[in-house]
Amino acid sequence: MRTTELVKMTCTIARSVDAIGDPWMIMIMKELFLGQRRFDDIQTYTGISPHLLSVRMKKLEKAGIVQRRAYQQRPTRHEYRLTEKGIYLWPILIALKDWSARWGKWPDGEPLKIRHKACGRLTSLKIVCSHCDEPINARDVTQEMSDAMVRERASMARQAAKRKAAARA
Amino acid sequence: MRTTELVKMTCTIARSVDAIGDPWMIMIMKELFLGQRRFDDIQTYTGISPHLLSVRMKKLEKAGIVQRRAYQQRPTRHEYRLTEKGIYLWPILIALKDWSARWGKWPDGEPLKIRHKACGRLTSLKIVCSHCDEPINARDVTQEMSDAMVRERASMARQAAKRKAAARA
Repeated sequence: MRTTELVKMTCTIARSVDAIGDPWMIMIMKELFLGQRRFDDIQTYTGISPHLLSVRMKKLEKAGIVQRRAYQQRPTRHEYRLTEKGIYLWPILIALKDWSARWGKWPDGEPLKIRHKACGRLTSLKIVCSHCDEPINARDVTQEMSDAMVRERASMARQAAKRKAAARA
Repeated sequence: MRTTELVKMTCTIARSVDAIGDPWMIMIMKELFLGQRRFDDIQTYTGISPHLLSVRMKKLEKAGIVQRRAYQQRPTRHEYRLTEKGIYLWPILIALKDWSARWGKWPDGEPLKIRHKACGRLTSLKIVCSHCDEPINARDVTQEMSDAMVRERASMARQAAKRKAAARA
């Protein structure tokens, strides 16, 4: 399988990976959440090449994650703003940040701190059950696959078995 | 900049991206969280080539995200288990899943549901402030960069300005 085929899978994670799961995409999203709106500024702070950035900004626009708006005429210049769908990516960025804040070494202190406006205190990632509000992590949950996902995985297993048999023959 | 240089940045997100931010890495992590422990099974359900998978499993082991253990002698066979550091990646996977569950089209229903063992109900991503326990999203927080991060970004801006001046000259 190629990564471009992930989008065809019956899998929510594959679908997200297809949309934003490459290293540059994540760095671009980070800059958008830091408030950058202009192509040049995003390029400056990611260090990505203009060509690679251009391809990705078009993909983000097509996916409805950013909206392009003219902020100047003659010559026309555009800026990018996160849409509602884009703003919903925030938990992914915060989870990435929190993991490396927790497990990385930061002798000069954590590079970015997040303050909750309403209570005024520094905050870090806390995930709770949407039903009972108790904190949850991987060990506190079970996972249930849909019939469509079970069928797809059974088919992948059959294909893998066939490939193995063919390799032995 | 190349993606291999991201690890040098004063940025928690760049550090996470370096560790697990490529499409296959995320698909591999997903399989580990679904309970796969064997190389062949991870290969089957991701569709990744054995070579690409092998490179990534070594990287995950080196990063302390998985631990390799022998489960059979003669011939020796290994399985991979998530370490504590690996299990802490769960919020990233859940956030990826939740975003595409919310914004994708799933005519056959959501592929994977998560049930909270303690309360017995289906649960979805809910992030609250670690200090006051109120739900938070991107609009509810401000971001504060460390001095080291501010300095690094100023230096990136100077370099970008120099490149532009050189291109005009």
